[in-house]
Parts: sequence; C-alpha cells; structure tokens
Amino acid sequence: MAHLSIEEATRLAVQALRHAGAGQAMAASTAKALVRAEAQGLASHGLIRVAQYATHLRNGRADGNAVARVTRHQGAAVLVDAGQGLAFPACDLAVSTAIATVRTLGVSFAGVTNSHHCGVLVDHLRAVADAGLVGLAFANSPAAMPAAGGKHAIFGTNPVAAVFPRRSADPLMIDLSLSEVARGKLMVAAREGQAIPLGWALDSQGQPTTDPKAGLAGSMLPLGAASSPKGAMLALIVELLVTALLGAQFGFEASSFFVDEGNAPRLGQAFVVINPGALAGQDVYYERMETLITEMLVDDGVRLAGARRIALEQQAGQSGLAIPDALDEQLHRLAKMQ
Amino acid sequence: MAHLSIEEATRLAVQALRHAGAGQAMAASTAKALVRAEAQGLASHGLIRVAQYATHLRNGRADGNAVARVTRHQGAAVLVDAGQGLAFPACDLAVSTAIATVRTLGVSFAGVTNSHHCGVLVDHLRAVADAGLVGLAFANSPAAMPAAGGKHAIFGTNPVAAVFPRRSADPLMIDLSLSEVARGKLMVAAREGQAIPLGWALDSQGQPTTDPKAGLAGSMLPLGAASSPKGAMLALIVELLVTALLGAQFGFEASSFFVDEGNAPRLGQAFVVINPGALAGQDVYYERMETLITEMLVDDGVRLAGARRIALEQQAGQSGLAIPDALDEQLHRLAKMQ
Repeated sequence: MAHLSIEEATRLAVQALRHAGAGQAMAASTAKALVRAEAQGLASHGLIRVAQYATHLRNGRADGNAVARVTRHQGAAVLVDAGQGLAFPACDLAVSTAIATVRTLGVSFAGVTNSHHCGVLVDHLRAVADAGLVGLAFANSPAAMPAAGGKHAIFGTNPVAAVFPRRSADPLMIDLSLSEVARGKLMVAAREGQAIPLGWALDSQGQPTTDPKAGLAGSMLPLGAASSPKGAMLALIVELLVTALLGAQFGFEASSFFVDEGNAPRLGQAFVVINPGALAGQDVYYERMETLITEMLVDDGVRLAGARRIALEQQAGQSGLAIPDALDEQLHRLAKMQ
Repeated sequence: MAHLSIEEATRLAVQALRHAGAGQAMAASTAKALVRAEAQGLASHGLIRVAQYATHLRNGRADGNAVARVTRHQGAAVLVDAGQGLAFPACDLAVSTAIATVRTLGVSFAGVTNSHHCGVLVDHLRAVADAGLVGLAFANSPAAMPAAGGKHAIFGTNPVAAVFPRRSADPLMIDLSLSEVARGKLMVAAREGQAIPLGWALDSQGQPTTDPKAGLAGSMLPLGAASSPKGAMLALIVELLVTALLGAQFGFEASSFFVDEGNAPRLGQAFVVINPGALAGQDVYYERMETLITEMLVDDGVRLAGARRIALEQQAGQSGLAIPDALDEQLHRLAKMQ
C-alpha cells in the first residue's frame, strides 16, 4: 500500500483531471469529493474514479469546459444544467442554491440535468446538514435493473440519500442504492466460482439466475425483488423524479460508466432541502431526533447511519490515506500526463 | 355478499361516523376515502375501517370535533394540525394548500401533525395528478418494525406513495409500505398452520422466526431485511420526515390502531408536490413519461402502477360494491346507532 496525505491526494487528482481537460473549478470540486469518498472507506467511489473520469473527459463523454449554471429558478424550484460536464460542480450549485432558498421559502427542490456520475450521493448533502437543514437526494445511473415484472435493464441502481442533523452530534447520514446487492458482489462470486442467491440478478434472457457470470451479462435485481415488486417501484419513483422533471436521460438511454467510449450520459440528480424552522421549529425538530435515537439505541445491535463513515474520514484527516500501489502509480502517471 | 351502490355506501359510512361524533366535513371526507378504497379492491383500508374509526371517536382516540387548520405557511412549507381528528380532512387541506402553492413557487412540502390513520396513502395524491402535478407522500403508523440491527418495533410500516400524471392516460400511481409483507399474511399463515419464510418477522425476543404466531407477537421486518438493512433505512427516513419536521409522534409512541383503547396516535403525514412547469416544463415532462413507459412495456410482464386499482374503481362506479354480509350488517347497525 502507498500512503498519501489528503492534500497530496487532492493535488494529484486535480492535476490528473486538469490534464484530461477539466477546468479548475470542475477539477477541484471533483477531486475533493473523490478524496472524501476514499477517506470514508468507499474505495469504489474514491480515487479509482479519477482514471475513469479522465478517460470520459478525453473521449468527449464529459465536457471539461462545461460551466454549471442555474437555468431556471421559479420560487422554490431550481434547475441546474451541468452542461454535460462532471456532476460535482453542478450538484454543489444545486445544493447551495437550495440552501439559500429555504431560508425564506422553507423548502426547495433543486435538480441537475445533463449530468454525469455523482459519486457518493449523501456527501452532496453535507452542506445541508452543516446548515442545520434536512436533505434528501436522488440520482439515476446507466441501466442496471428491470422494471417490476420486466426482463431487461431500464433503471439505474438509483440511490436515495438523506441527512438529518442533530443539535450536538454528527448528523444521521443515510445512503443506499435500490439494487439488492452491488455489482461488485457478483464480480467477487464470479472470481471465486461461487453461486449467487436467487434474487440478486437475472440472466441476459431475463430469467432468474444463480450464476454470477450470467448475472453480470444480464441485469441486477431491485431490493427485495425475490419476493416483492416494491424495490422496483421505488426505483421507478427515483428514475422519474430525476429525469421527467428535469429533462435528463433515463438509465436505458445512457452508456455505462464502465466503458471508455459511449455517449454523454446526461443523467439527473435531485435534492430536496427542508428547513425545520419553517415547520414545527428547530427546537421541536431536535427534541424529536434525540427521542428517536435514544429509543433506537436501546437495542445493542443498532448503529447510527453514517457514524462509521464519519469516524473513518476523521481518522484519514489525521493519518492520511492508504491506497493500493497500482492506484498510487496510476494517479501519479495521470497527474504528470500532458 | 351484499351489494351497495357507491352513494349508499357513502351515506351509511357518513351516518356511522356522524353518530360516533364526527363533524359533517370530517365524516364526509373520511367516508369518501373509505368507499374509494373499497371500490379499488383494497378491503383492508375500506369500509371495514368505519367501525374502527367510530370506536376511536367514541373512546377519545380521535376527536370528532377537530377542525384541521394550517398553523404555519412559510413560503413553500405548510404545516397542518389535524387536531387529533381523523386524518382525511387534514390531508385534504395539506394537499390542496400545496397544489395552490406550487402554481407560483414550483414545489411545496405540506405536513400534517397530530393525525390518525390516513387510509390509502396514494389516494391523497389524486388531486395532485388531476392538476397535472407530480406528488410524493409519506406516513408513519404505530410501531411494527425494528430499526436496522434492532430487536423491538420502533417504526410503523411507513408507506411511500407517488403519482406521475400522463398527458392522455391515467397517472402512474405507486403505493407501497416498507414492510416485507403485510401483517395479514402472517394472520393467514397462522390460521392455516403454515410456517412463514425467514425475513418476514421477528419474535418477541427479537429473534428471526418462521412461526407466524410468534411473528404476530413480535415485529414485522422491513423490505429485504433478510439480506439488507436498506428497507429499515428507508423506514427511518420516512419516520423522521413525518415526525421530527412536524412535531408528530413516532410509531413507538402511538397505540395500535387495532385496539379500541389507547392514546390519540398523533402520527404524521407529509406531501411533496412538484410543478413540472417550473422545472424542465410540461412538454418535456410528458415526453419523458411516454418514453419511459414505452420502454417498460417492451417486456410482456410489466403492468403500469395503479392501472388495476383505477380499472376496479371505474367498474365499481358502474356496478357498485359487493361486501361481506357481516360488514353490510355492521354498517347498517352503526348508521342507525345514536
């Protein structure tokens, strides 16, 4: 393993993205988010993405010169156009605009269209929690899951995230994708020659499969799909919220993030920010939060959502990041590449 | 089976609720909702609830004289106090206020506090779809499910609903509770002496069980809980949205709906209404809806969410309702009771 300080990792990521064509603001926002994911132990959304984003920038799947802008702001509704750039500066703009809006209007729905991969969804809501506000976030991704009763992939794995701040403690931070398992679990099973449970995936004919390789060639199943269409229905809600309202592309219209060539995915993200002070009030809100958390912690097995990520991030802030040597070499190479 | 017209069923339900102490507006709104549920084939949320609500009105668990009112309206944020009355007039008021608000402000979050059982959640969004708007709804209910990793029931089964209108067709109407299965499935298994799958319920010690009677004495499990904490995390999001922001009670603080005595549940409901015209625009919205639906219907097994309910309701509008004789007798008895 190689060791990098947060600052050094950020500098390398910025340089790599700049060399691939990203403007300074886009590179800085993206690097900060990827380093934060790495620091939280979320390697699949961390520095490994620098090379992927750089390739997309070089191949025209993401526009490094794009400047995110608010194209519509009617009352509490905000539409941000990412201009087919990387998602991070556009999400920053949507969230900061929503936070400003809820000071007077109490609630805001801020969507991002013509966007790309948004990384760890809940991290876009950090500023919301820091401001003492409640936030929800939704995103789609390239097609991975069928509709309820369907056989071919239409929706992304469509994450949902939420933050609920507390008065004198870290916020609750919830972040989950709506697939039963992550694709990575099928990759591990395929490598180890293990069968997978029914309910994880369909094969390319749309039939349930226990063969991880067949599942990788087919589609992932939504949460709880072995017994219920509810996960697929939730994925449908998310897919529509971040596309139909915003003019973004559906998962089935976007090329995979995991190939070098393909279209600009033009996906969508949406954020709902709510000011507790505009409803029952901050004092009532904080009392209710602590009452529920106290009741949850009566059971030994309960861990507060987000606590582990926050602890890992704080630790990485002091001791830096440990990353595989190959990733370290790749980052240095991309940071030098002209 | 007994046969009733929609009008006759509504008249009986209104009279029964009036005799139990509900004001005219509360009785009318509640009766309309229960008849609509019955007409859609949702008997568990239909006329069978008349007796339950009447008992709660008589026992002080619901205040028949309550008048729902908007206690706070800051910009796009709306707080309605149900005054411990039945939920329906308060939900009507929250939704109609939100619809009016989004004409200028684009989005609204309208919550209801000090509320009771809200029936079929998605039906509160019918007016939203009729107005060409997108709607989300959330509610909590008396404690039925544990937190992720927990052993005792804290959250309700916490339904989520959504409507997405179409230009020239019925809206998509999505409505699901976040439990793996409805409690009724355990009741059927107990009656028939069948085991239940792991993942449906915990016993009263918080241990997984295949015994439906032990499950009924314990707690229901969230969607997908056999393999994932995601369903429990979604239930946590819903629980907080409808309580902490609104000052409502948590599921663990509310007495069951299925007992005659107990407290006023003082639960919460929340509605998010979004005007597509304030974001990417109505034309873009309707194009995106039809593009997705066309792609979904490529697979033979896909049915559009809500279509079956709407068809049954239209059929009942013509041919009336068929209900069990015992329910018909109960309704007539309650409608005559002074």
